[in-house]
Amino acid sequence: MSKHLIINAFTMNTVGHLSTGLWRHPRDQSTRYTNLRYWTDLARTLERGLIDGLFIADVLGVYDTYGGNADAALTHAAQVPVNDPLQLVPAMASVTTHLGFGVTASVNFEHPFPFARRMTTLDHLTDGRAGWNIVTSYLESGARNLGQSAQIPHDQRYAIADDYLEVCYKLWEASWAPGAVVADRERGIYADPAQIHAINHDGPFFRVPGFHLSEPSPQRTPVLFQAGASLRGRAFAAANAECVFVAAPTRTVLKKQVADFRAAAVAAGRAGDDIRILEQMTVIVAETDAAAQALLEDYRRYASGIGALTLMSGWTGIDFSRFSPDQVLENVESDAIQSAVEAFTRADPSRRWTIAEIAEYCAIGGDGPVLVGSPATVADQLEEWADETGVDGFNFASVVAPETFTAIVDLLIPELQARGRFKRNYAEGTLRQKLFGRGDHLAAPHRAAGLRAR
Amino acid sequence: MSKHLIINAFTMNTVGHLSTGLWRHPRDQSTRYTNLRYWTDLARTLERGLIDGLFIADVLGVYDTYGGNADAALTHAAQVPVNDPLQLVPAMASVTTHLGFGVTASVNFEHPFPFARRMTTLDHLTDGRAGWNIVTSYLESGARNLGQSAQIPHDQRYAIADDYLEVCYKLWEASWAPGAVVADRERGIYADPAQIHAINHDGPFFRVPGFHLSEPSPQRTPVLFQAGASLRGRAFAAANAECVFVAAPTRTVLKKQVADFRAAAVAAGRAGDDIRILEQMTVIVAETDAAAQALLEDYRRYASGIGALTLMSGWTGIDFSRFSPDQVLENVESDAIQSAVEAFTRADPSRRWTIAEIAEYCAIGGDGPVLVGSPATVADQLEEWADETGVDGFNFASVVAPETFTAIVDLLIPELQARGRFKRNYAEGTLRQKLFGRGDHLAAPHRAAGLRAR
Repeated sequence: MSKHLIINAFTMNTVGHLSTGLWRHPRDQSTRYTNLRYWTDLARTLERGLIDGLFIADVLGVYDTYGGNADAALTHAAQVPVNDPLQLVPAMASVTTHLGFGVTASVNFEHPFPFARRMTTLDHLTDGRAGWNIVTSYLESGARNLGQSAQIPHDQRYAIADDYLEVCYKLWEASWAPGAVVADRERGIYADPAQIHAINHDGPFFRVPGFHLSEPSPQRTPVLFQAGASLRGRAFAAANAECVFVAAPTRTVLKKQVADFRAAAVAAGRAGDDIRILEQMTVIVAETDAAAQALLEDYRRYASGIGALTLMSGWTGIDFSRFSPDQVLENVESDAIQSAVEAFTRADPSRRWTIAEIAEYCAIGGDGPVLVGSPATVADQLEEWADETGVDGFNFASVVAPETFTAIVDLLIPELQARGRFKRNYAEGTLRQKLFGRGDHLAAPHRAAGLRAR
Repeated sequence: MSKHLIINAFTMNTVGHLSTGLWRHPRDQSTRYTNLRYWTDLARTLERGLIDGLFIADVLGVYDTYGGNADAALTHAAQVPVNDPLQLVPAMASVTTHLGFGVTASVNFEHPFPFARRMTTLDHLTDGRAGWNIVTSYLESGARNLGQSAQIPHDQRYAIADDYLEVCYKLWEASWAPGAVVADRERGIYADPAQIHAINHDGPFFRVPGFHLSEPSPQRTPVLFQAGASLRGRAFAAANAECVFVAAPTRTVLKKQVADFRAAAVAAGRAGDDIRILEQMTVIVAETDAAAQALLEDYRRYASGIGALTLMSGWTGIDFSRFSPDQVLENVESDAIQSAVEAFTRADPSRRWTIAEIAEYCAIGGDGPVLVGSPATVADQLEEWADETGVDGFNFASVVAPETFTAIVDLLIPELQARGRFKRNYAEGTLRQKLFGRGDHLAAPHRAAGLRAR
């Protein structure tokens, strides 16, 4: 059985996203990230390739674990400077019709009352193409800059997130009944107060008595994305997420993660395929295998190993600057470091990797796998990944931007279409309808559906 | 001496802004406020007329003083539903080159660390055309929905605002030195850590130790707008604002406000004309005086008196539903009500107005003056307003949207140009450079200029 893959592009409002140092490549344009035209051109390219959505990562902090400060992150543009992702979307929406947008926002950035209005606004302005990547954690430097003395403990974060989502669900689903907006010019009634309900939320962290300030948007609740592989994170995703984003290093690991997520969804009273699971993936595709390998070699000349170690240090909490570059796996002292490093040696875990080799390797594609080859070669591997693991699709990161995305659209997409593994037209409707084909709104048994006002 | 007027359009991301009930007019398109095309078309129209900026109001709450609940506000679309203003700008910026944008945001909505990044992002994406309307207060319903048990006292609000601005100024001006972004592809240095400074802010309300996450935008600090006529508000504006927005009911009142603001600026160590003062104004302009009067009569058929009283109740804190519609001024019991009502009878304070008459009157143009006539008639009056009061320009609100703005662009602007009172081309450069002609950045003696990193 083959089905259409879901394919997103994965980016960030920054110079360097996952492939550190590649901003130095002569054809890379990511230093134009402050320019609207860069983004509207990208959106047009992606829609030309029928890409399902553009997923925009974010951090509200800096990677300052490596060396104990932000010097390496700033020097090598390791996800800093980084700008607000939300504002990119309205401009990109204005030049596209179908492309979806997933915006990352942490439940720790902003109170849920104004945040819910932001997302409703986004869903209105995109005609129902908005998604929210729910983030529960952020870098410790972000917590400090929000006036918190220390980062909130992991489990507490999910308790806050639960309450935060409850507020959002009530505002999006329960506050305005379907017939609340009358817009009757003759009778002079815009909205019917009897159909607009105060949510009277009094939770452990948030108290919101009033009604939503925005009228319902096409999807009401934006499509809910989540990344997170911890046990508590998986339970949270199983209860809330419609799409889950993972970055498994190997097919074996991914297969287990996919099975675990689907089982967790079932345990939460949903169907296993109520959740679309997307794997982070970097592909370097060219007309031939040789051309693609040459491209990889060319790209490697610009990769920043220190930039990669800076990101890895932030992700793992381990300061990789403490190690000599030629130190190999066997010689590191702790199991935690050992297992963290192993996660980054996905290509060949049986081999002895030095820190420098790991860094060089991860400077292309970050913590996700990388596929290199002709359209047929890459499509073969993607099919294997999908068929072996049961994953629903991929979030493709760029190496050289937007060149990586343009190659995907021009070379890889047609190959996947020829194999019947990718759609030839966009489906009509909202992003949720496109992804699930069951309507614009969250459906039962999702917990938010039960809140909807009649 | 005549100089060019500054002319902004004044709107809100909502159905009904200041002219309540006019959404029912057959030609009104403001019910399309959730549609991006509505906004990008408006932006193109305004830029065609060389309008200086689009000023977008906002409230994070509802007008629930009238009748003690939000029923009237919802029924008559009195600034509810209301969506996020910020997200309109990137799409409008993408179809314009010169039009400026003033976005309203309260210092109570969001922590200054992420807010500063939002505004820097906006200034980047607009190529230096961003302004921030600093709001220190908001409706009590907004405070409750942010989890606060009561609204913060007025003077305390300004103390919070001072600390909030201090954080923003340090992030925008002091954190990244002018040479911090190196972007040297050869040497692999994006930013120079030695030129990026942690702000180490430890104020009475906010603690922000780190550096700004965004690299400097063209203006660094967005152009600072403020509305506020209280004594404390005036002192705040004198110390911070570059443009002040007032809604004086008469020329006499405006003249005094203008003089007071300029004196306050001088007292704060700035020049009187370091502050551009803009008066809220509604103009109904047509080819002839008779046609304009006919337009006004036509508009009045759709005006909502209850909607106007709902806004007035929110602005004044007085529940006007307590009064009989035919009650006249002399018969109301308190001085506070008396003076509030007088403020809304700007056309003829000597006359005896009933509540119903006041409501009908204010349903066109809200709390600001209204001018009606041919281009020559309206231009005559605008010149008188400007020359008698020393005001620098006007924020024009719409009655029927976008018809009011289109008429201003097509009829009034050419008349003002012919009289030498309006520019014939946009100046080059950022919004700040266009408005003041002294460069892209805040200049001494503004308090923020002294913070700038070398």
